[in-house]
Amino acid sequence: MIPESDSSLLNTITSPADVQRLSREALPQLAAEIRSRLIETVSRSGGHLAPSLGTVELTLALCRVFDFPSDKVIWDVGHQSYAWKMLTGRNASFDSLRQFGGIRGFPSPKESAYDAAVGGHAGVALSTALGMAAARDLRQGKENIIAVVGDASLTNGISLEALNAIRHTTERLILVVNDNGMSISQNVGAFARMFARRISGIRYNRIRAAAEATGHHLHLTGLKAFYRAMKRVIKPLLLRHRSAIFEDLGLRYMGPIDGHDIPALCEALRAAADGHVPVVLHIATVKGKGYPPAERHPSKWHGVSPWATSAMQTPSTPPAASWSEAFGEYLCELARNDDRVVAITAAMRDGTGLGKFFREFPKRAYDVGICEEHAIAFAAGLAAAGFRPFVALYSTFAQRAVDCMMHDVCLPHLPVTLCLDRAGIVGADGPTHHGLYDIAMLRALPGLTFHAPATRSGLQSALNHALTSDAPAVIRYPRGPICEAHPTTLSPDESPKPCILALGDTAAWIAPVAIELGLPCLVIERIKPLPDCLTALKGRPLITLENAAIQAGFGSAIAENHDAPVLILGWDDRFIPQGSDVELRQFGGLDAVALRSKIETFVRESIS
Amino acid sequence: MIPESDSSLLNTITSPADVQRLSREALPQLAAEIRSRLIETVSRSGGHLAPSLGTVELTLALCRVFDFPSDKVIWDVGHQSYAWKMLTGRNASFDSLRQFGGIRGFPSPKESAYDAAVGGHAGVALSTALGMAAARDLRQGKENIIAVVGDASLTNGISLEALNAIRHTTERLILVVNDNGMSISQNVGAFARMFARRISGIRYNRIRAAAEATGHHLHLTGLKAFYRAMKRVIKPLLLRHRSAIFEDLGLRYMGPIDGHDIPALCEALRAAADGHVPVVLHIATVKGKGYPPAERHPSKWHGVSPWATSAMQTPSTPPAASWSEAFGEYLCELARNDDRVVAITAAMRDGTGLGKFFREFPKRAYDVGICEEHAIAFAAGLAAAGFRPFVALYSTFAQRAVDCMMHDVCLPHLPVTLCLDRAGIVGADGPTHHGLYDIAMLRALPGLTFHAPATRSGLQSALNHALTSDAPAVIRYPRGPICEAHPTTLSPDESPKPCILALGDTAAWIAPVAIELGLPCLVIERIKPLPDCLTALKGRPLITLENAAIQAGFGSAIAENHDAPVLILGWDDRFIPQGSDVELRQFGGLDAVALRSKIETFVRESIS
Repeated sequence: MIPESDSSLLNTITSPADVQRLSREALPQLAAEIRSRLIETVSRSGGHLAPSLGTVELTLALCRVFDFPSDKVIWDVGHQSYAWKMLTGRNASFDSLRQFGGIRGFPSPKESAYDAAVGGHAGVALSTALGMAAARDLRQGKENIIAVVGDASLTNGISLEALNAIRHTTERLILVVNDNGMSISQNVGAFARMFARRISGIRYNRIRAAAEATGHHLHLTGLKAFYRAMKRVIKPLLLRHRSAIFEDLGLRYMGPIDGHDIPALCEALRAAADGHVPVVLHIATVKGKGYPPAERHPSKWHGVSPWATSAMQTPSTPPAASWSEAFGEYLCELARNDDRVVAITAAMRDGTGLGKFFREFPKRAYDVGICEEHAIAFAAGLAAAGFRPFVALYSTFAQRAVDCMMHDVCLPHLPVTLCLDRAGIVGADGPTHHGLYDIAMLRALPGLTFHAPATRSGLQSALNHALTSDAPAVIRYPRGPICEAHPTTLSPDESPKPCILALGDTAAWIAPVAIELGLPCLVIERIKPLPDCLTALKGRPLITLENAAIQAGFGSAIAENHDAPVLILGWDDRFIPQGSDVELRQFGGLDAVALRSKIETFVRESIS
Repeated sequence: MIPESDSSLLNTITSPADVQRLSREALPQLAAEIRSRLIETVSRSGGHLAPSLGTVELTLALCRVFDFPSDKVIWDVGHQSYAWKMLTGRNASFDSLRQFGGIRGFPSPKESAYDAAVGGHAGVALSTALGMAAARDLRQGKENIIAVVGDASLTNGISLEALNAIRHTTERLILVVNDNGMSISQNVGAFARMFARRISGIRYNRIRAAAEATGHHLHLTGLKAFYRAMKRVIKPLLLRHRSAIFEDLGLRYMGPIDGHDIPALCEALRAAADGHVPVVLHIATVKGKGYPPAERHPSKWHGVSPWATSAMQTPSTPPAASWSEAFGEYLCELARNDDRVVAITAAMRDGTGLGKFFREFPKRAYDVGICEEHAIAFAAGLAAAGFRPFVALYSTFAQRAVDCMMHDVCLPHLPVTLCLDRAGIVGADGPTHHGLYDIAMLRALPGLTFHAPATRSGLQSALNHALTSDAPAVIRYPRGPICEAHPTTLSPDESPKPCILALGDTAAWIAPVAIELGLPCLVIERIKPLPDCLTALKGRPLITLENAAIQAGFGSAIAENHDAPVLILGWDDRFIPQGSDVELRQFGGLDAVALRSKIETFVRESIS
């Protein structure tokens, strides 16, 4: 369903060249149509609304100025690329956004030649853009390479490594810093302040002192008035200063430009493209621009579930308690009774259910921004000094921190607990976001206890164990509603029948199948050390099931240590697309019918 | 053997308190004694000579000013901590440096309460120090937390994440930037220039333009004279500028201080400790200080093999060609015939054998500094643009980049080849440096080809395959001399006898044992996709051997896919200490005697 009438501008656009053919005067209408389609589509599909609303004009300006796909734009994270998708041949299919088999919610080179790189994990766009720029320079090409990076992503370690590398890598690169004055939750840290339009405490004092020293006196009628005054009086000074920092990095600083002013953006982009020195183009955008609820509450509208077909309503909250909420609540309970409990996250405060903890224990809660590695090494310092840090990250993003888990946590055997939210498939966010590799990447680390609870009480036991064991721990649990009780299963008896071992949340997938087949099924809640039951099952064929990649996963650990055939079920060796749980389990052969059939075959073979 | 006479000062020092009791005048003698013992010990043990020679005075100053172990110092990387070890109760046992059972070449909390954190991987000291500072602040403690970070480590992403986080985490922290004007190979990047005493191209131009504009004219008699002139004329300007950058990060900048002037260091450290704002103390040291060969060639003397019992000679080079050299040479050969071949490393240029490539193809070679993640994402950009990047990293440091391998290389299926040098045990560098987890952390990634060549020709085949296959690849090979030919083994016949699968370099460990036991043995050179021979071995008991952690490793992959018992041999589930290959294989039960005994038991059981 395309809501615009056939005479809409948007429906005439099949590539960026079509945008170039429009008159300048037509662009605001096109922007409005894009926004309307964005809101309408996301209201049904869910997705990253506020970020994409903020970059509509930037996307139009890019299409006007550059020659894609020869020129390349790399969208960091990529959740701001919906307008880009509409303007690069995917408007007709945009209704399928985030659906199984449909348009991805992130850039994907497999989907379109206009998507220069995969998006999903923050911080790599600038590095990848530098690689493309280096390639162009080697072959003496002419194309423009543009990286669009949000202010929050810019403080990620990889972004900073790349920022540091620009000047000795290439003389031609455009880094657009999309500054909406906030990350998913808030701007964190000092580098962010380089871009901040808000005047923070330190700068306030320094500037006020300077103002007073020069005879100026500021009559303040509240902070807001002060900010306004600052903006008029001190802005040129700040800009000079900011500019000096980028010059120190060997870059030309341009900005800030109003990121919703298409002519200004076009002019700036043209100037940036002409240069013979890498350019940082600082643009100021409003997250959620054009949709009042999202402008008012951009964090809430950052990534949303489908809410309605009529827009302008608030998204409905999911009914059942989620694993994240259960985690956050119980961690608060632990923290009330034990002063050593501290919580750390990396720009996933609400997503990991830690919002409550941050409100109740603000001094014992740390949101370090999109810095997963720093989060773990920082936790190691807290643990070495006697605290008990719980670091909550999404499984897929925690992949950044496996070296810190090895070097800084497991080697000194420190009581840091890594709580892996969204471990397993995550639905519409797709292959960049499924948490399928944490078991493989972490289970080889010596001294680690690796939990995979199946229920709320299992989660609580794992957290208790982590708190009291004085050892490194990982706890993985899936996205979605928490399970309150183990499903009914048959216990293994004395017979040599194959036994099913269902890891964590997969107990619910397999229990009915096991009952149907008359097979015993144990719900396993620990990957490492191996569950004790294994000794009793010596010599018996086993079937393992996990919501993770099977290579090097839980079933693999069982197979390493078992003396009879093991059928390992889980996500096989390919990237899993986006889709609903039902669709993905069908795709992966993990729905009840497929599981039953695979198990029946195995049972026949192992008995014969 | 302690070479100093009993009347030496060093032998009277059993803790930092003893250093405080000495008169100020005695310190230069103590420094000289430390240097002499350092050189003498490292000449026998090998190790990180130049870095440790550079920090003797800093270490003494720290001991004078602070109250350890209540106060904490965290040495980044830690290869500069030899003097620290001597002064904190480990002088008597310092002869055992880097020996099996002896003093570690890196800080180790298990070895001494004075070692506040593990050292080994660059870039985490500041994060860990921040964690300790946060812990102190929470309990309203008074202790000082000091991170000592080299200029090269400071450009690592984790360091930058932490630098960004200091000001909103704590008001009290001392970051000592140990600026020796070079990293292992050279300073790379723009952040490094913040500290650079050498004036680089850009700054040269900017400053010269400024000087000319103000009527100054610089008569240059070569670059060196210019540098000297710059230092006198422009230094205050530069320092003001540099200082502004750190103020922007919310830090007080102090320096630069002569890092070999003990009174100046003490004064600066005392001032830093008094402050109520985090301090960056910039000290300038000479790498290799006090040992003329090392001062002249600090890179060569960064980490050295034992060279002699009489010092002042150059280290002897190992006689046989190493895997690193074989890799570097063959990559040059490939590059001569294929313009698409580019090489990338992360401050491991010579260590990975790429020195020759950098000399022969300087435009196609990138040393990105200690930035493993950027290295991989940068390679992804080059690959997306049609090049064939080979990224050479040590296995242990590549752990930093597994997320980039997943998200930026494997998901878009780009032809980036990660060449893992020092995969397996590495000897005297010990548990921080053994490359045991790469198989576990990488083999679950879809679309990856994972090679583990056993010989030079196997390495060349793997490189050829990687170049021609247009797919992501990993090639792992060990530290040490390359094997030129497969050892003699028996091929599997029609009998149901257990068969040995020896991965890569372990073929040489097991071949004689296999012959002795009359067991067939296949040398396996690929982990993923699984070797083809597996089908032919259906139903047969297997014995796997790998120079890697067995959990989630190669044998684990075999066990996942095999229908008969598998005995998995390799490094078991604990951190492996430092030592010679012989010592470590004995420690790990992987020497010929232990292997034979384990295999015999398995064969008996699997036949019965």
